[in-house]
Amino acid sequence: MTSNVQPEWDDLWINVHLATLVSGEGYGEIRNGAIATKNGRIVWLGKQSELLEKVQVKRQHDGQGCWLTPGLIDCHTHIVYAGNRSNEFEARLNGVPYEEIARQGGGIVSTVHATRKATETELFEASLPRVQALLNEGVTTLEIKSGYGLDTETEAKMLSVARRIGMQCPVRVKTTFLGAHAVPPEFKGRTDDYINLVAHDMLDALVAEGLVDAVDAFCEGIGFTREQTERVFRAAKQHNLPVKLHAEQLSDQDGSALVAQYQGLSADHLEYLSEQGIHAMAKSGTVAVLLPGAFYYLRETRLPPMDKLREHGVPIALATDCNPGTSPLTSLLLTMNMACTLFRMTPLEALTGVTRTAAQALGLHQETGTLQIGHSADFALWRIDRPGDLAYAIGFNPRVATVFKGQII
Amino acid sequence: MTSNVQPEWDDLWINVHLATLVSGEGYGEIRNGAIATKNGRIVWLGKQSELLEKVQVKRQHDGQGCWLTPGLIDCHTHIVYAGNRSNEFEARLNGVPYEEIARQGGGIVSTVHATRKATETELFEASLPRVQALLNEGVTTLEIKSGYGLDTETEAKMLSVARRIGMQCPVRVKTTFLGAHAVPPEFKGRTDDYINLVAHDMLDALVAEGLVDAVDAFCEGIGFTREQTERVFRAAKQHNLPVKLHAEQLSDQDGSALVAQYQGLSADHLEYLSEQGIHAMAKSGTVAVLLPGAFYYLRETRLPPMDKLREHGVPIALATDCNPGTSPLTSLLLTMNMACTLFRMTPLEALTGVTRTAAQALGLHQETGTLQIGHSADFALWRIDRPGDLAYAIGFNPRVATVFKGQII
Ligand SMILES: [Zn+2]
Ligand SMILES: [Zn+2]
Repeated sequence: MTSNVQPEWDDLWINVHLATLVSGEGYGEIRNGAIATKNGRIVWLGKQSELLEKVQVKRQHDGQGCWLTPGLIDCHTHIVYAGNRSNEFEARLNGVPYEEIARQGGGIVSTVHATRKATETELFEASLPRVQALLNEGVTTLEIKSGYGLDTETEAKMLSVARRIGMQCPVRVKTTFLGAHAVPPEFKGRTDDYINLVAHDMLDALVAEGLVDAVDAFCEGIGFTREQTERVFRAAKQHNLPVKLHAEQLSDQDGSALVAQYQGLSADHLEYLSEQGIHAMAKSGTVAVLLPGAFYYLRETRLPPMDKLREHGVPIALATDCNPGTSPLTSLLLTMNMACTLFRMTPLEALTGVTRTAAQALGLHQETGTLQIGHSADFALWRIDRPGDLAYAIGFNPRVATVFKGQII
Repeated sequence: MTSNVQPEWDDLWINVHLATLVSGEGYGEIRNGAIATKNGRIVWLGKQSELLEKVQVKRQHDGQGCWLTPGLIDCHTHIVYAGNRSNEFEARLNGVPYEEIARQGGGIVSTVHATRKATETELFEASLPRVQALLNEGVTTLEIKSGYGLDTETEAKMLSVARRIGMQCPVRVKTTFLGAHAVPPEFKGRTDDYINLVAHDMLDALVAEGLVDAVDAFCEGIGFTREQTERVFRAAKQHNLPVKLHAEQLSDQDGSALVAQYQGLSADHLEYLSEQGIHAMAKSGTVAVLLPGAFYYLRETRLPPMDKLREHGVPIALATDCNPGTSPLTSLLLTMNMACTLFRMTPLEALTGVTRTAAQALGLHQETGTLQIGHSADFALWRIDRPGDLAYAIGFNPRVATVFKGQII
């Protein structure tokens, strides 16, 4: 070969076992495989023995028998926030009643205050260690919600920080506007007025700044009604934005059917999901995003309707729900174990839930979440014996390397 | 100062907040503190403002406002084993009955086979990533049990590997002989014969090789009887070895009272502990080692008698119980969160449980587990706002540095 031969591929990984997670084939295992990337995309994958010898490669990497999976995707987080609520956790365990904690300014209000007060840089720096914890476990795509500002300025600040994370860290960020997370103190007793602000001035302003990839709400007895949620969804649709919903976590509000009616990307939590909701989700292709971290942290006992979800073919995803009040969880691997241990999901369902279906819950299934030619070269390399190890171990991180858009990070 | 002035201290850490965990003072907080070491020991600690300026120091370190706690102690592990049982985990979640898995050679027998087959080096290398996961979270002392050999040769191999971990890794290792873990296949139906072997030839041989720091057994309906356990304890006492016991995990066998009667260091698990057992433990100063990882993994619902343990002043420790069958857990921080979330322990109880009382469960409370002058300089530095953060976060590791016997590692 001469120096003017153009390399055909940028990077070639050999001596790896692939779990492609391509639909309908279990883990999509290709043992003794190889995978090649060019310009940040997967351009070839298959048995190493089928590699053509003539291909030119800029860089070749020996995977040393590790397993290679799609980069992990955390499709539901509230990871951008300021303040620290470990004091509430500690107070509750020391017997202080919840009402007393609320009276002292605790609960979500405390996070709203701290987030409003923080500068954009402070907010970024407070969030970074949590983001880094996810990246350390092979996460290459991350959804980040607003919802601790509850005013236009702070919601914009949160989503700007989310965008900044996407620019400064090796991770793809999808932003979700969650103005309808809670009623801010200054709107106490005027929930409809607040929804009016969220659905119009607030959403308009954030969309104008290019900060919103999707719109979410908290539809719950202690949150917003189905009707209020629908006002937010209608506004989202006017902006051509996809919707998602915090639904059926503590009670059945039939929110899942609503989000399905709006062709929503996902309904999330779902412990109280009804069969009617499942039918609606199955029909619209809405992903069920389960959040075992919140279930664990709140010591819930009502399980999501796993068998019915499976029976009706609703795609199931998993996420950390990382947030300071009900799921201070920054490990997607642990989330997988919790899904298996607490919800009796299989390790295959768990791994699918943080790759292929998680991508679907973000509208990214044409881009990432599986290993296939044309997809973004997002993958993680693990020193494990088999893919099931990822869900089996508890508090163990076997990651060896991450590749994001073709770059080793 | 002139060059022939001998430094008085080796290392001085300034700009740290100390949580000494010294008894009876909550976290033993010293804000804006400093701590000095010499020859691997703590030689001074207190308010930084009280530091004498004249002291000579070889090396000074700026803790940058981090919190400094005693090095963590995992006082109950089965971390040395070969083989991988994620396949059983996966099979069970895919609906394969336990009996079928057992028929195919699964369960503890599979770990015994793999551990017998492994060379000492293979066993060491298989265990190392798990040990490293603990060390990454500030662990400086680690208990390791045998019990997957169930023959003299393999039990010796396991304990040799444990000793080697203590020599080659920056961690203090205490070994525990757990020959009475299960009846090996070749003794099926001859449990008393096996106990005879354990209590005499096996223990004698292992003690002669200097491999045993303590003796443990599994006293349970599916394990060994109280009488068989006592035969092992009597043999331990003849060697002047302290005893511990796997007790009251699945049923009340009154094992805790037995281990208390032998002035045992600890009784471990304890979900079914009776008030009588608590009284006996309180009287003998036997530590209650709780293992929330196994409780979580097995989805148990019967909680240890927390209030009664507190009421009677039984010291409570926590450990991972790291093992392939019922607690594949390698995070002591997560263990702390599980203790708070599942057992409603306070963050202070959780941190005490992996430091001061864990040291007591290993007979090491004069040596490590608290920050006090004369103790081994074992500590961990954390980027946290307050000590309670360690138990609050889930799947997050805020460790900045570890010091073991005065050495930064
Ligand atoms: Zn959420
Ligand atoms: Zn054990």
